[in-house]
Amino acid sequence: PRKFKAKVVEIVVKTKKIGQDDPRRVAHSAKVGLALTLVSFLYYFRPLYDGFGQAGMWAILTVVVVFEYTVGGTLSKCINRGFATLLAGALGIAAEYLATLCGENGEPVLLGILVFILATTSTFMRFFPNIKRRYDYGVLIFILTFSLVAVSGYRVNQIIQLAHQRLSTILIGAATCIVISICICPVWAGQDLHNLAATNIEKLASFLEGFGDEFFSFLGDEGSVVASKDDKFFLQGYKSVLNAKATEESLANFAWWEPAHGCFKFHHPWKQYLKTGVLARECACHIEALTSYINSRPQVPSEFYRNIHQPCVKMSLESSKALKDLAGAIKNLTHPCEAETHVKNSKAAANEFKSILENSSLLAIQDDVQEIVPALVVASILINIINCIEKISDSIHELSE
Amino acid sequence: PRKFKAKVVEIVVKTKKIGQDDPRRVAHSAKVGLALTLVSFLYYFRPLYDGFGQAGMWAILTVVVVFEYTVGGTLSKCINRGFATLLAGALGIAAEYLATLCGENGEPVLLGILVFILATTSTFMRFFPNIKRRYDYGVLIFILTFSLVAVSGYRVNQIIQLAHQRLSTILIGAATCIVISICICPVWAGQDLHNLAATNIEKLASFLEGFGDEFFSFLGDEGSVVASKDDKFFLQGYKSVLNAKATEESLANFAWWEPAHGCFKFHHPWKQYLKTGVLARECACHIEALTSYINSRPQVPSEFYRNIHQPCVKMSLESSKALKDLAGAIKNLTHPCEAETHVKNSKAAANEFKSILENSSLLAIQDDVQEIVPALVVASILINIINCIEKISDSIHELSE
Repeated sequence: PRKFKAKVVEIVVKTKKIGQDDPRRVAHSAKVGLALTLVSFLYYFRPLYDGFGQAGMWAILTVVVVFEYTVGGTLSKCINRGFATLLAGALGIAAEYLATLCGENGEPVLLGILVFILATTSTFMRFFPNIKRRYDYGVLIFILTFSLVAVSGYRVNQIIQLAHQRLSTILIGAATCIVISICICPVWAGQDLHNLAATNIEKLASFLEGFGDEFFSFLGDEGSVVASKDDKFFLQGYKSVLNAKATEESLANFAWWEPAHGCFKFHHPWKQYLKTGVLARECACHIEALTSYINSRPQVPSEFYRNIHQPCVKMSLESSKALKDLAGAIKNLTHPCEAETHVKNSKAAANEFKSILENSSLLAIQDDVQEIVPALVVASILINIINCIEKISDSIHELSE
Repeated sequence: PRKFKAKVVEIVVKTKKIGQDDPRRVAHSAKVGLALTLVSFLYYFRPLYDGFGQAGMWAILTVVVVFEYTVGGTLSKCINRGFATLLAGALGIAAEYLATLCGENGEPVLLGILVFILATTSTFMRFFPNIKRRYDYGVLIFILTFSLVAVSGYRVNQIIQLAHQRLSTILIGAATCIVISICICPVWAGQDLHNLAATNIEKLASFLEGFGDEFFSFLGDEGSVVASKDDKFFLQGYKSVLNAKATEESLANFAWWEPAHGCFKFHHPWKQYLKTGVLARECACHIEALTSYINSRPQVPSEFYRNIHQPCVKMSLESSKALKDLAGAIKNLTHPCEAETHVKNSKAAANEFKSILENSSLLAIQDDVQEIVPALVVASILINIINCIEKISDSIHELSE
């Protein structure tokens, strides 16, 4: 009983956390419940029931299968389902008609062959990346409807009557889903993709903001060292950027279906977010390489470290500022105005670092070479990051045009 | 017409490529066609048809929706569908019984409330990561079946008869799918995950194999430079490793459902592959950082580069050999026997590099510091890669136990 109680408490805590992480999830669940209840009443009350017959259950089936978390997902499934049902229904009727011409014995053979050919080619089509991305569900419904119609064994005029009923119930189910998903707390995939792109870049920025001070913390500033223990999680944020690919791609696919909403028009250049995402992940990769060096600086600060301290911290801070400006530009759909200045500043800091290297002739470096290696690597990776940020900046400029 | 012809040719070429990339796709398509045709005949021929009634269409529906590319995917959907239908059916009957107690007027209200509550909580449950991963489809079918049964408006004894029919047709559909998917050219998710893990590590190995020579190619060996132009694609392979996360996770989820097959027993430690995958991606990240330096070595080979050439190439080659041994160990499910030696060798090379740094006192380095930075960074990242390979080796050791 104790174990059981602990388990219950754990589940309650988890449930609360999932709800609080994104309250729209609670709203989504209630929306599905509402849509289903509405459609059930349609099915339950006799006057309507008699009109639609058994086909009423297709409305329930449609709601359950089609209602997705985002508006784009719901729309894509509704549209796919509608068109696939129409097309497959027409083809199925044609097949049925053809089969009746073959006589009593030829009919099942011809229908069997047709079902086999259509199912095989359609299933193979699902392997095409373009079709898989956008019309996967449609192809599935196409196979299903064609088989059901072709094999139903009804005469053509019966089928047309049945199809009429079934289509109208599917339409009612789909319309209920679309209206509820758009009108009550809509979750736009496009908006989510947009926010995801901005927060990912912000995460990179907050890493770089803290990194410089963290790496050179042994040069003094006791205060900053003590403080940094609490908020070291900024050093972890970039990791979720590395894993964002799948989420970004599915959001972009759904966003493609969405009508104009908020400040996005229909067919906003969602693909551009994917390009930005690729660059952000490249940048996160460089950051991952940086993290190996956080704890590898020498114990005793040397002359060399003091010399390069300034430009390195500046590189890191300025690139952080550039990224923050870019994230802000994404968020507000404006041109990034200060990012270029910050990139320039960080490049100037990089040049400063290079000239320190040149001037502090090697004779002057008193240390062991081993000791200066981490600093050189860190600076060099920071320069790579700056180049990467420049590319991100270009990509976001394209987006804001 | 010309454009049209070009388009057709393009599609044919694409289709061929998709088929040749993985011939099992063609087999899968034919398998779906076969399963559907078999089940259609069941539905079509009157003796059977009369026995099952309209419920026969549930067999077709089950085949279309449940047949997945991998055995694990098909099994997971079949099992989810079966149990969810049973559970929801029982609950639906209970709800129906409860509702009849409420009288003519109370019945629809109570049923509506029950449908709303169940649909809402079940939909929310789909946000739990553990449920989403394994039972997402089951929860969907649960909502669907419960709503259909509760709202059907039949009396309880009618429902039980209907449920019997429907369950038996679903069973026939699911059994057809399982038998065909296991007996004809089975695609095991576990085997695929296994192969993916091995090839990903091989890709890292072939990058490191070529990298050393590529980076130091300006030190002579004209032959290797000319040759390397053709097979530079080995420098790109690691990129697919970075993006393998989503594929790995879905394969691991499907593999969990699969019975013993080949040399894998039921509940092989598939999760361990995910851990290895995380480390492989970390390694690929370091490699991504390396690629920035391939073209940044100085034009003129200097004394310093000649000195460190040997240990650096050795580090790269030995870690490549270690990875190859590890990939082989995964493939053959054996203990990696030589990997540790190679890791040791590469660590020895790393120490050699460090001692060269120490001994070649800075006074002796005649170059500009700027010139030696790329080499230092490359060597330093290689050392990180060696550490990463050690972790991969540990992870694979655990796997082979």
